[in-house]
Amino acid sequence: MAQIYFKEVYKDIFPFWDEISESDREFICQNSVAVTYPKKTNIHNGNECSGVIIVRSGCLRIYIMSEDGKDITLYRLHKGDMCMLSASCVLQSITFDVFADTEDESECYVINGSAFSQISERNPQIKIFALETAVSRFSDVMWIMQQILFMSMDKRLAIFLSDESVRTASDTINLTHEQIARYIGSAREVVSRMLKYFASEGIVEVSRKGIKILDKSRLKQLVL
Amino acid sequence: MAQIYFKEVYKDIFPFWDEISESDREFICQNSVAVTYPKKTNIHNGNECSGVIIVRSGCLRIYIMSEDGKDITLYRLHKGDMCMLSASCVLQSITFDVFADTEDESECYVINGSAFSQISERNPQIKIFALETAVSRFSDVMWIMQQILFMSMDKRLAIFLSDESVRTASDTINLTHEQIARYIGSAREVVSRMLKYFASEGIVEVSRKGIKILDKSRLKQLVL
Repeated sequence: MAQIYFKEVYKDIFPFWDEISESDREFICQNSVAVTYPKKTNIHNGNECSGVIIVRSGCLRIYIMSEDGKDITLYRLHKGDMCMLSASCVLQSITFDVFADTEDESECYVINGSAFSQISERNPQIKIFALETAVSRFSDVMWIMQQILFMSMDKRLAIFLSDESVRTASDTINLTHEQIARYIGSAREVVSRMLKYFASEGIVEVSRKGIKILDKSRLKQLVL
Repeated sequence: MAQIYFKEVYKDIFPFWDEISESDREFICQNSVAVTYPKKTNIHNGNECSGVIIVRSGCLRIYIMSEDGKDITLYRLHKGDMCMLSASCVLQSITFDVFADTEDESECYVINGSAFSQISERNPQIKIFALETAVSRFSDVMWIMQQILFMSMDKRLAIFLSDESVRTASDTINLTHEQIARYIGSAREVVSRMLKYFASEGIVEVSRKGIKILDKSRLKQLVL
């Protein structure tokens, strides 16, 4: 029963599913487990191989951490997303450590790392899929890093939103991304993307009505 | 003549060379050019597709740049190294911009991006090689980013080396990496890797005799 269920889901998630042999498909399903993790649980810790994690419901936060416990969110995974960085035994070329926590109760499918590795050795399209998944995540990560390193764009945007909220005595900022970009000396695309990042962190809510500040204390932390 | 020469070199550089068809090998060579760039020349600029660059001699510096011209070196490429990030048309999943300058006069082979892309579509092992090259570079990049973002380890090490040089009235610091790590509250591996980075930047020279400061003004810039 369980295996049939995995198959149904994998068919939609893996672009290579119809191209591999029936026995390889079964092998992947036999090496899969469905796990429901409670809210706020660490499910991947650094350089261990936790396997390939597929999110069925809930939300995972992927982050890097310093020795003294500071962390930076790299990205979040939602329904249908897949984490390759947790499978260090699959992608040998990844030598840095990420962490993954659940934000809400999350149902995940976990494919055993060494099984996935075996199967990707004999199916190049699986290996390509795994590598492309990793590379596209890296592009997101590079963007965030550049903004933080070079321009403190997170800080500049946080300062602007804070100041504007005080000035107008309102939690909602009624300016276009274009206008904000002009105020903080940046480009509209940069502001939109950083606001999306803030929104994914739960700091603001972005809608047609404007930008609503949800978490003032986190916004203040960014300003410091 | 030129094509025969490309073949000799590619045989050693590309692990997939013997696995692809003779006509594909010829196609790659036909779409290759040998270029000698002068010292300190920009040879790749952001999101254009400059093709796959293979270094034959000299040295390339790969870096990211902010709008106001600040840059951070990601890594350097030497003889036999290959730059995939310059071929944005090959790896669609890379959406961020890097720059490449020659440090010395550099002889490079450049494979046309769209030709490389075509050939990698019909040879999965080429695509895997290209993606793995990119992913392994990213691991280096993540390490540098983490050190700078979290711990200002570059700054802490620079401060320590400066202070120690003044204290001992010498440009050479005669301490083991282990000892330095203890002084700055880090791990030996971190100090060794950061010193390697400083050395590649020409800031210090690391030998058995100790750590010799080569570029005091750049060291001071890091301290600021």
